[in-house]
Amino acid sequence: MSTPLNPVALITQKRDGQSVAPDDITRLVDAYTAGEVPDYQMSAFIMAAFLQGLSDAEAAALTDAMLHSGTVLDLSGTSGIKVDKHSTGGVGDKVSLILAPIVASQGVPVPMVSGRGLGHTGGTLDKLESIPGFRTDLSMAAYKQQLDDIGIVLIGQTEEMAPADRKLYALRDVTGTVESIPLIAASIMSKKLAEGIDALVLDVKCGRGAFMKTEADARTLAETLVAIGEGHDTPTVALLTDMNAPLGRAVGNWPEVAESVACLRGEHDDTPLMEVTYALAGEMLALGGVADTPEAGRQHAREAVASGAALDCLRTLVEAQGGDVSAINDPSTRPDAEPVATVTAPKGMRGTVNEIDALAIGHLAVDLGAGRRTKEDTVDPTAGLTLQAHIGEAVAPGDVLAQLYTDRTEQLDAFAEALRDAYTVGDAAPERSAAVWDRYTPAGWASQV
Amino acid sequence: MSTPLNPVALITQKRDGQSVAPDDITRLVDAYTAGEVPDYQMSAFIMAAFLQGLSDAEAAALTDAMLHSGTVLDLSGTSGIKVDKHSTGGVGDKVSLILAPIVASQGVPVPMVSGRGLGHTGGTLDKLESIPGFRTDLSMAAYKQQLDDIGIVLIGQTEEMAPADRKLYALRDVTGTVESIPLIAASIMSKKLAEGIDALVLDVKCGRGAFMKTEADARTLAETLVAIGEGHDTPTVALLTDMNAPLGRAVGNWPEVAESVACLRGEHDDTPLMEVTYALAGEMLALGGVADTPEAGRQHAREAVASGAALDCLRTLVEAQGGDVSAINDPSTRPDAEPVATVTAPKGMRGTVNEIDALAIGHLAVDLGAGRRTKEDTVDPTAGLTLQAHIGEAVAPGDVLAQLYTDRTEQLDAFAEALRDAYTVGDAAPERSAAVWDRYTPAGWASQV
Repeated sequence: MSTPLNPVALITQKRDGQSVAPDDITRLVDAYTAGEVPDYQMSAFIMAAFLQGLSDAEAAALTDAMLHSGTVLDLSGTSGIKVDKHSTGGVGDKVSLILAPIVASQGVPVPMVSGRGLGHTGGTLDKLESIPGFRTDLSMAAYKQQLDDIGIVLIGQTEEMAPADRKLYALRDVTGTVESIPLIAASIMSKKLAEGIDALVLDVKCGRGAFMKTEADARTLAETLVAIGEGHDTPTVALLTDMNAPLGRAVGNWPEVAESVACLRGEHDDTPLMEVTYALAGEMLALGGVADTPEAGRQHAREAVASGAALDCLRTLVEAQGGDVSAINDPSTRPDAEPVATVTAPKGMRGTVNEIDALAIGHLAVDLGAGRRTKEDTVDPTAGLTLQAHIGEAVAPGDVLAQLYTDRTEQLDAFAEALRDAYTVGDAAPERSAAVWDRYTPAGWASQV
Repeated sequence: MSTPLNPVALITQKRDGQSVAPDDITRLVDAYTAGEVPDYQMSAFIMAAFLQGLSDAEAAALTDAMLHSGTVLDLSGTSGIKVDKHSTGGVGDKVSLILAPIVASQGVPVPMVSGRGLGHTGGTLDKLESIPGFRTDLSMAAYKQQLDDIGIVLIGQTEEMAPADRKLYALRDVTGTVESIPLIAASIMSKKLAEGIDALVLDVKCGRGAFMKTEADARTLAETLVAIGEGHDTPTVALLTDMNAPLGRAVGNWPEVAESVACLRGEHDDTPLMEVTYALAGEMLALGGVADTPEAGRQHAREAVASGAALDCLRTLVEAQGGDVSAINDPSTRPDAEPVATVTAPKGMRGTVNEIDALAIGHLAVDLGAGRRTKEDTVDPTAGLTLQAHIGEAVAPGDVLAQLYTDRTEQLDAFAEALRDAYTVGDAAPERSAAVWDRYTPAGWASQV
């Protein structure tokens, strides 16, 4: 018999910087999920955890409690090593749409549960739903069946998965406790581990357009995520990637689907977007056992694009989930996908694009209708923008910077101004920073070993 | 027009250690009291304030908001400078019962709103209610009238006074945020300033039996309290007093009333209890304008006891509030006030009493029935104990240490053991520490000027 749960004692422990026993964290989260511990006690505990921190053991216990608050999928009936990827969120981050078909086409099953856009960052679920007819609300049975049948399935989080995480996230959202690394890590990992995966690759983004603005925070998050994965016997690798500028040229749901198709056609190789995608694919293929090393996996991935196998896999996925394959075959046929405005470089903007502020572009995309200002908003699937002048490219007054897609045409002047303000143009070429900065595994950072 | 209240932004400011504008604190507390800000946001804010601290300006704004959440009494119709005293709570602390009649008998009106016992400490309200017939639930009109008529009135906090403080205290009690110096200070001062007083004396207790265990914390609390009083144009003086041992010999409600009567008869002069009482009285009489200095006020106070004027004032008070004056005239006539057990010094306890653990005695008094284990408990008015051997007195095996009053007679052995365990007896005399350690005013600490 254990002693009765004493929430005030646990709040006080954490408040005073003491560690809380994993078993006590489990009981607290269980009681909170069951409605036995009220929101006001949980918010006090979470604020104390925010300010005093959580150890790896405490974060692992929190993850575990949230993970087991709902259904943990059993995919042991599907052969192969199931591998997923999670991104901490960025602007123009359509990597999942390109990556999942690449990896699945090479025989590694990819069961991916995605989220919606959050703040200035997009969400894979919103992008998928911009494909006419595409359904993301599969039942658990259909999810398993599709993974068995075609080795790839992309859905949204269901009610059954990690309900404690949903409840706690909603509370954090209204109590100023979102931006805590261990709380973020526990939230991510509880959802990902509930998918029934065997291994996980993390794209931890850092920079202006990311949630982690500093490299130190991004590295700590990567380390915390990998530690939790290890604690759950799930091999986990994290890549630290750049999110100072938008990833790729398209920002917005359908514009990003169209760009993803072009990527799978091989039209964007040797861009930062594909550098990140191939690096993540290499890790997934190595973890999935079809490549001996991440480097070999990267080579497989390039071949999957070059051969058309990855694009075929995307077509199969779209068809399986009810989407209109003709839109994938020729994205330009989507009737309402015409730009409504072209933004050009103003007088005096001459030189080389040095920076494009990803955060400003992310906010602009929301304003164009591609994201949500409040949770109740719906997104406009075709709203967004495509950058015609990217970093390192030359611009002169009158050159096209970007095309805008929106039905909020009365605000076009303000949108154009915001777009131009996001650009920094200089005389010299920018210092090209690598798209992938570093790699973390339980053995440490690649840069340090 | 001000911008709409954004609770998350204020929580985040405090979380990040920034100061929150006084106006924003006011609006947050107002909205919380009105039920527009939910408990879970307030508890997150309060935990952030607990861990990041509140500046004097923030504490003053919090006090002000709680003060004005209800009725602030207007006693301007009563002539004289109205002065009250507040104690931060101790064991055997019956000072208010002795002090208020002393001060009022010298012509300084004393409007005193008191609280009930909390944890191991007693409350003046419980003590008053142990006098048969004594009523503490006067209406605001009756409160003012009595102050006009006899210059002294002692009641409990009404629903109209500082309701925000009551609501916030209840929340702090269940969210691990009680022991914060600025929050404690704001709570005390909002209640005291609502009384309509012109000046205030604070008895900040420090030691084993106090809420402030360390001298540093007690000094900070004194400084915070005085700063808030000054900020509200209410002259405020704080005395730092010892609470390592019980104050006086009686602990429990009726036992303390009986001891107070003996004090007013002059039977306990030159004890630490009366040293504290006279020091506080001197301050009140000086603030009330009937003595030129606290030292002169102390002399007035001694004369008020010696002449019987203070005891007469207590009789007048008891009569005015419906109490049985015969019980005051001869406390031993109260029928159920006989001790049920005498605890003697065990074999081997020989020497001089060096310490009596006030915290242990306070817990013992609760166990005897004098306090509440939960808020719903009722107190036994006659339960408690009287110490026969106090600090500095000689004991030998078989000597009486204390007498116990309780109807929980089945636990007498455990009570006796707890009582004996609270004693430390040594060969040498204890270092007699002063009862009053220091004095704080806006000019600084007396020990440092």
